[in-house]
Amino acid sequence: MALEDRVRELAAEVEPADATAAETARNLHQRLLKPPGSLGRLEDLGARLAGMVGESPPPVPENPAVVICAGDHGVLSRGVSSWPIEVTAAMVETFCAGGAAVNALARTVGARVSVLDVGVASELERHPLLRTAKVKPGTDDLSKGPAMSREGAARAVLAGAGVAEELVESGGVDLLVTGDMGIGNTTPAACLVAAFTGRLAKEVTGRGTGIDDAALERKTVVVERALELHDPDPGDPIGTLAALGGLEHAALVGVILMGAVYRVPVLLDGVVSNSAALVERALAPHSTDYTVAGHLSVEPGARIALEKLDLQPLLDLEMRLGEGTGGLLAVPLVQSAARVLGEMKTREEAGIA
Amino acid sequence: MALEDRVRELAAEVEPADATAAETARNLHQRLLKPPGSLGRLEDLGARLAGMVGESPPPVPENPAVVICAGDHGVLSRGVSSWPIEVTAAMVETFCAGGAAVNALARTVGARVSVLDVGVASELERHPLLRTAKVKPGTDDLSKGPAMSREGAARAVLAGAGVAEELVESGGVDLLVTGDMGIGNTTPAACLVAAFTGRLAKEVTGRGTGIDDAALERKTVVVERALELHDPDPGDPIGTLAALGGLEHAALVGVILMGAVYRVPVLLDGVVSNSAALVERALAPHSTDYTVAGHLSVEPGARIALEKLDLQPLLDLEMRLGEGTGGLLAVPLVQSAARVLGEMKTREEAGIA
Repeated sequence: MALEDRVRELAAEVEPADATAAETARNLHQRLLKPPGSLGRLEDLGARLAGMVGESPPPVPENPAVVICAGDHGVLSRGVSSWPIEVTAAMVETFCAGGAAVNALARTVGARVSVLDVGVASELERHPLLRTAKVKPGTDDLSKGPAMSREGAARAVLAGAGVAEELVESGGVDLLVTGDMGIGNTTPAACLVAAFTGRLAKEVTGRGTGIDDAALERKTVVVERALELHDPDPGDPIGTLAALGGLEHAALVGVILMGAVYRVPVLLDGVVSNSAALVERALAPHSTDYTVAGHLSVEPGARIALEKLDLQPLLDLEMRLGEGTGGLLAVPLVQSAARVLGEMKTREEAGIA
Repeated sequence: MALEDRVRELAAEVEPADATAAETARNLHQRLLKPPGSLGRLEDLGARLAGMVGESPPPVPENPAVVICAGDHGVLSRGVSSWPIEVTAAMVETFCAGGAAVNALARTVGARVSVLDVGVASELERHPLLRTAKVKPGTDDLSKGPAMSREGAARAVLAGAGVAEELVESGGVDLLVTGDMGIGNTTPAACLVAAFTGRLAKEVTGRGTGIDDAALERKTVVVERALELHDPDPGDPIGTLAALGGLEHAALVGVILMGAVYRVPVLLDGVVSNSAALVERALAPHSTDYTVAGHLSVEPGARIALEKLDLQPLLDLEMRLGEGTGGLLAVPLVQSAARVLGEMKTREEAGIA
């Protein structure tokens, strides 16, 4: 129970965002040199950022980092993906070598890349960008029993939290972007979204990397059976995560948790991150105050999760890659929302009544 | 006629985008290290960029510039805006001083700012960021007669084209962003959108800076009457621009035109830019190949214009400020679309079948 207790201790540290700072930012937007409201959703985003950091105008986050949590999945043996398990490790190596989509997008927005192995099935070579905190070499098949132990889930949460803490404390990171890698990981994401929203398997299950109709039907049945088998209690987030999650989902819960503890904005990528945010909300309801939905994934569970989280995605570019790509693309939007609050003149300063 | 002839000469120089380069980029996307199609609309954007520059992968545009074309409007006397005419000049001064929204967003994405006065009502102080090519100190009231002469319209088009040419030729700019400033300028934008799409005044007229119901009704009637008065011929883009446009709209036609001539991508801002793109399309049908819709403005004419142009906006953040703000926010998306094509490994290179 010690690890679970540590997770709960951290969750208890999460405070609500600063409503006064957010209100101050909202009022400032009414006075800036533009028609009030004309910056649309950028205005609300700026006010939310002010609430997160407790300061108006909020500082511009100039030091973003994407944390890609990686793990494998026992449920892959049920034919839920068309890609083999070895791809997870190959992709982690590519992240370290700089040749994946997430690397290209991180370079575009000036974000550093950090990779965390919490459950890749094979041993990986050491690399400066890679943190290793392997809880186990892939989850067990969630359609037959729990994906992992409660202790394993808590350990993965703390591993993610540890990487986020290191980035913020030692690295000066002021904007965390969530990323994921794990062949098969939209199946546990669908299970988690269903568990925390009460929606049906067929509503939350999607094509992931692009499976055909037959595989989608198989995958939907797997999700349905897993939900019946485990009958998850959304009031027990660690238990639900252990039963139906992935190790990278658990680590992402920790990244979001630690962002909330440090009051650092967390930009969510797609459905895997969205499902982790649902778990995290059950652990610490105010943690959602510190999250921004970077984009809307094509995966159907994404929209359902974000609606439950009451988060409106910034981008909708029909993406479904994961890795943190959709979160990274939204980094300049977050920076812009902060920057207009800090750098625009007021109408009064410009002599306009 | 000399100036109009020069515009037509330039328009005749616009060639269609390179379909082979676009196809090569599309094929490359099928082989990159990700499920095919998983980068969604970023893939199509990358292929379009390859077609524009005639090269796959397309180079990453690292040197963007926003061109803010500014002018005043005789139709303002009809009560179509709640802001006074002096605000146009005050905003131009603020652009030069760096205190407007467009400046903050330009800093976020590393874009240079260039301001062009083609028709501000008052004399402006000289400033290094400001080009002066004032055709006249504001248009005439388009609800009573032509907004400007055909020659004036052509002169403003060439002024915009000249600034774009200078930025590309001498400044090494590889991505143009369109911006506008002119109190009252959504009225001519609505007129132009109606003229080139055949839609009704009430469908294309919006609240601009945020007018109330009574002013919106007044504005709609102004647009309706102007369309009746001039009975514009969409086959005569210069004539339509002269009758119903603004000087900054005309200058933006020139910016888009010169981008197309130089095969430099042009990122469109909101409804004023969208209306200019419709005019430009009538002048040079292939020019649309070189435009990217940065965002969808709240202004109803924006959606109608973009549908006619067959352009899907990248962002939809409920913005309606103009200045180039919505175009600038999309700069990192354009850069990302190019970068993934140039920097991602293929599946074959990563040893994934």
